[in-house]
Amino acid sequence: MKLPVSTEWLLHCATTLAQLDPGATASAAQLAQYYDLPAPYLAKQLQALVRSGVLAATTGPRGGFRLGRPAAEITLLQIVEAVDGGASPYECREIRQQGRGALRPEDCRETCVLAAKMAEAHEAWRSSLAATSLADVLATLPATAPERTRRRMAGTA
Amino acid sequence: MKLPVSTEWLLHCATTLAQLDPGATASAAQLAQYYDLPAPYLAKQLQALVRSGVLAATTGPRGGFRLGRPAAEITLLQIVEAVDGGASPYECREIRQQGRGALRPEDCRETCVLAAKMAEAHEAWRSSLAATSLADVLATLPATAPERTRRRMAGTA
Repeated sequence: MKLPVSTEWLLHCATTLAQLDPGATASAAQLAQYYDLPAPYLAKQLQALVRSGVLAATTGPRGGFRLGRPAAEITLLQIVEAVDGGASPYECREIRQQGRGALRPEDCRETCVLAAKMAEAHEAWRSSLAATSLADVLATLPATAPERTRRRMAGTA
Repeated sequence: MKLPVSTEWLLHCATTLAQLDPGATASAAQLAQYYDLPAPYLAKQLQALVRSGVLAATTGPRGGFRLGRPAAEITLLQIVEAVDGGASPYECREIRQQGRGALRPEDCRETCVLAAKMAEAHEAWRSSLAATSLADVLATLPATAPERTRRRMAGTA
């Protein structure tokens, strides 16, 4: 069970965009340089975050990416699911209805208890990630971090 | 993020073995027939559960697999991690220390807050699965289930 490597990228890129001045944007190339990441693949992933509403993309000479809504309204879950999708890692293929031990369909109207427990665990994981917003993450950073991030992103330091 | 398809197999096989008479065993071939699964691959996975102590294997003419300890002492987490390993789905490659925005090593002595939050979510998932034992699963089945399971497993019904 593995999340894409780009999950780390997008969590960090969103955290970085949350530190820019209001209205400011960063291009995929700038973000790629900032973290030394492959720009084309990062750009594709940033677009996935735009589709999910976590980021917004503006076009034009000063265009780029910025948060799609306030940092307090963007959760880690939304970022992770924009990258990886929201499917549960557990796949129930109803093997209880096949083979010599097959149960009858009328005995399988309720979800299998094993599938239900796996779904509960996935919900526990989702709830945990939904409980942290980008604003919460920013609150844990040193007070000097946003200023440093902006300077480094602009390439002026 | 996907668990192996065999996760469902082993959760069900362990639940089935938990319903056998004390001391009784089932072979990989019997379990494969019971759920119409590929026997060689299932056998490999059953061995993984033996290595982790969830199951025990006995040899000889009446040999086979049985639970390695009482059903109340086997959790869904132990079965799932025997199949998939216990690694977190999130991989932190410390991109905060690379590229133009690289933080200094001395500023990275603490775990990145993003990695810490992802680890918390994984622990929430683990705790959820650790809270359910095979005995809990059996308690949700109809009272007639164990008898039916034993008959079907023996091929006498």
